[in-house]
Amino acid sequence: MNTKMIGKILSRILVLESLFMIPSLLISAFSSQLRTFVGFATSIGILAGASFLLFLYGKKAKKGFYAKEGLVCVGLSWALMSLFGALPFFISGEIPSFIDALFEIVSGFTTTGATILQEVETLTYASLYWRSFSHWLGGMGVLVFILAITPTLTDSGGFSLHLLKAESTGPDVGKIAPKMRQTAGILYLLYVGFTVLDVIFLLIGGMQFPDALCIAFGTAGTGGFGVLGDSIASYPPFIQYVCMIFMLIFGINFSCYHLIILRQFRSFFKNEELRFYLITVAVSTGLIAWNISGMYASFEETFRHAAFQTSSIITTTGYTTVDFDTWPVLSKSILMILMVIGACAGSTGGGLKCARVLLLFKSAKRSFRKMLRPNRIEAIHMNGQVIDEKVVTSTNTYFAIYAMITVVSFLIVSIDSPTVLTSFTAVISCVNNIGPGLESVGASQNFAFYSVFSKIVLIVDMLAGRLELFPVLVLFSSAWRKK
Amino acid sequence: MNTKMIGKILSRILVLESLFMIPSLLISAFSSQLRTFVGFATSIGILAGASFLLFLYGKKAKKGFYAKEGLVCVGLSWALMSLFGALPFFISGEIPSFIDALFEIVSGFTTTGATILQEVETLTYASLYWRSFSHWLGGMGVLVFILAITPTLTDSGGFSLHLLKAESTGPDVGKIAPKMRQTAGILYLLYVGFTVLDVIFLLIGGMQFPDALCIAFGTAGTGGFGVLGDSIASYPPFIQYVCMIFMLIFGINFSCYHLIILRQFRSFFKNEELRFYLITVAVSTGLIAWNISGMYASFEETFRHAAFQTSSIITTTGYTTVDFDTWPVLSKSILMILMVIGACAGSTGGGLKCARVLLLFKSAKRSFRKMLRPNRIEAIHMNGQVIDEKVVTSTNTYFAIYAMITVVSFLIVSIDSPTVLTSFTAVISCVNNIGPGLESVGASQNFAFYSVFSKIVLIVDMLAGRLELFPVLVLFSSAWRKK
Repeated sequence: MNTKMIGKILSRILVLESLFMIPSLLISAFSSQLRTFVGFATSIGILAGASFLLFLYGKKAKKGFYAKEGLVCVGLSWALMSLFGALPFFISGEIPSFIDALFEIVSGFTTTGATILQEVETLTYASLYWRSFSHWLGGMGVLVFILAITPTLTDSGGFSLHLLKAESTGPDVGKIAPKMRQTAGILYLLYVGFTVLDVIFLLIGGMQFPDALCIAFGTAGTGGFGVLGDSIASYPPFIQYVCMIFMLIFGINFSCYHLIILRQFRSFFKNEELRFYLITVAVSTGLIAWNISGMYASFEETFRHAAFQTSSIITTTGYTTVDFDTWPVLSKSILMILMVIGACAGSTGGGLKCARVLLLFKSAKRSFRKMLRPNRIEAIHMNGQVIDEKVVTSTNTYFAIYAMITVVSFLIVSIDSPTVLTSFTAVISCVNNIGPGLESVGASQNFAFYSVFSKIVLIVDMLAGRLELFPVLVLFSSAWRKK
Repeated sequence: MNTKMIGKILSRILVLESLFMIPSLLISAFSSQLRTFVGFATSIGILAGASFLLFLYGKKAKKGFYAKEGLVCVGLSWALMSLFGALPFFISGEIPSFIDALFEIVSGFTTTGATILQEVETLTYASLYWRSFSHWLGGMGVLVFILAITPTLTDSGGFSLHLLKAESTGPDVGKIAPKMRQTAGILYLLYVGFTVLDVIFLLIGGMQFPDALCIAFGTAGTGGFGVLGDSIASYPPFIQYVCMIFMLIFGINFSCYHLIILRQFRSFFKNEELRFYLITVAVSTGLIAWNISGMYASFEETFRHAAFQTSSIITTTGYTTVDFDTWPVLSKSILMILMVIGACAGSTGGGLKCARVLLLFKSAKRSFRKMLRPNRIEAIHMNGQVIDEKVVTSTNTYFAIYAMITVVSFLIVSIDSPTVLTSFTAVISCVNNIGPGLESVGASQNFAFYSVFSKIVLIVDMLAGRLELFPVLVLFSSAWRKK
């Protein structure tokens, strides 16, 4: 285990995090909110100190960086980022309990958007900004960011590949560019571009710049933290449509956009995951609109709410324009299933990912055919290419592990959940990085009532979901410590 | 496709079914219930006629019987058995709707035990007997029965293996005896033996013989149909303990009992599935007893209810001594998870089966280790033996297909479910052949309120669950018709 190299990377992560706290520091200074200023200043100081210690530790790091190091490094990065990221909320006293502060920032970094705040309006703008920015940072990944900006670190022994693999979403990381650094750079360029575009549209819709920034961060990271208690409900329809369209955009595999840049339109439209994603959105919107017809004044409003909630849930954002807990059973069931499916692989969204669901479906179909003709050998194709059997197998076991984590968490959280469905959807919502669930954790509710123990379980779930299980499992497992 | 051979087997199945209706015919005659007598007499006549036609069709059947034929044959057998088995209820007018009658008998054959009856006491004893006997027949499997009693059919081209494989439960059929016919015979001998023992204990407990017979059938098949509206609740504790212990006995892999007969006690106690099953029962009972403490008068009563419900649900029987829908959330969540785990492979119980859950867990663990050390090759062991990779892969895809069927059914049944949890547990309960669910399909409720459409979906779910998906899928798929 190359612990020095891991230390070196962690040191950079913490510097980066401290730098990202500076805007909030300035905001609190300009709005002369002393306690918040102290919160951020102290946090930056602690981060700088911790980073320096890690820098000293990792100074003489050797090369040699393997899959295990990649997983451990990503797991530790996210754990540390979360622990330090919670400090401003806690020190400023805006969130008096440290576990609550941790829950809130993990919910931010993992782009979940579940909150323990009874009233979001009580936060200062500096804290709101930090909370929403954590979505943006967590969406594409902080290690991917580091890869994109630091040329010196890269290409030392499979290093960047293993980091990118461990932090990115989906069954397999597509190489956009021949070098991982370039891939990371292109990803972040697209990400920044779309976010800026989103802000511009929100401004056109009449939103104030500070709010537009927060909402755009929440949309880009498919997070779901807003600035108002009722999420997106009180904004005019134009802004709701803007949010909806940008959520859908950020839920698509970013390598698809790269295809457009390269003018490979045929490959773009032939992408099976993209088709599955769009068809699922269309069908779900249709079914929900039919199911809730009569509940709203006009056809436009019915369609808007159906399409918004569908887009928000499948992309695992979690913004809402209505309290879908009041909808009929069928609509709620559809949303529950969308929670599990999730967005496209290689997007900022969570869930199982459309690509995995497609792969599971194809592998099940093949299994069935094999049962009828046992001697037939058949490969699985996706986007016209043969899928490596290793990816098929690992997708199936991924699903099994995912189900086990969900079941165990559901059991533990049931100890202090008011209803079975609350417990189940709270876990589903956290593991898939959605935000709201049903009943007591529904769209108009929050996670404040849970005990410290349940909150810790849900924090682990959010991290496991965002990092796609393995980096979190590796931290819990003693396997790597034995050597 | 060897359709003539399939016809020949179906012909025997229907003869057998008509023979099994004779006890009910006699009971209705002796209790001079004319309508019920007409119901059974007509059904026997129709069965005999249909059987004769199939006999003529399959007269010149050639050899050659493959996996596909096995699946189609099992799927069709169960479909026909159910359609004809519903006739007595329908013709006698005791269940006026044919879909309801079909639901009831499918629930019987698949050992689910879910009912559409508002009051079970309204049925005549002849019908009650037929209803409970369907559990007993479905538990071990009607084709296994035919294999056990008809020497002439067997060993014609892999025939018996494919039938046994398609009808038995679990990831892999263990060969108890060198010949499949012997295996089937031993299974049924054990089955009859334990059933007789169960009846004797129930009689000792003071139950009347007719009731004891029905309850023993429901226990042996891990079905759950009783003779009273409140299931097992109004019987004395002794009888509740007898039911509990026999449910647990019938939930164990029958090949384990064969090990005991062969005096291979070491292999018996080393059986990992058995250990997992017993530990799960013990832990769940403990947790539930702790969770519901204070709800009942004495420690004994608390323990009895916790242990009974745990045993009933993990073995997928569905008998109840209390309405567990009134229990706290944790207990209900545990029961929901037990519903999915199910009993041991090779038992009469449903669910995923303990062996599959263990295999999923082991394959997930290996996947995780492989992630850390990609070049390591590692086999999965169970009971000290290496598990074929094909079994590991098929178990993972089995789980994926199982989840997909559950999700799709959940969506459809949501259209006319009063709550999300009702819809979810109704499907879970039917797919895993349990019986009761939660809320509107809870232990004190029934499935009568569902629409015809939902009932059909649930009927398919019950069959898919009992036959472990593939025989039902093959009937729905057009793949086999193309050739």
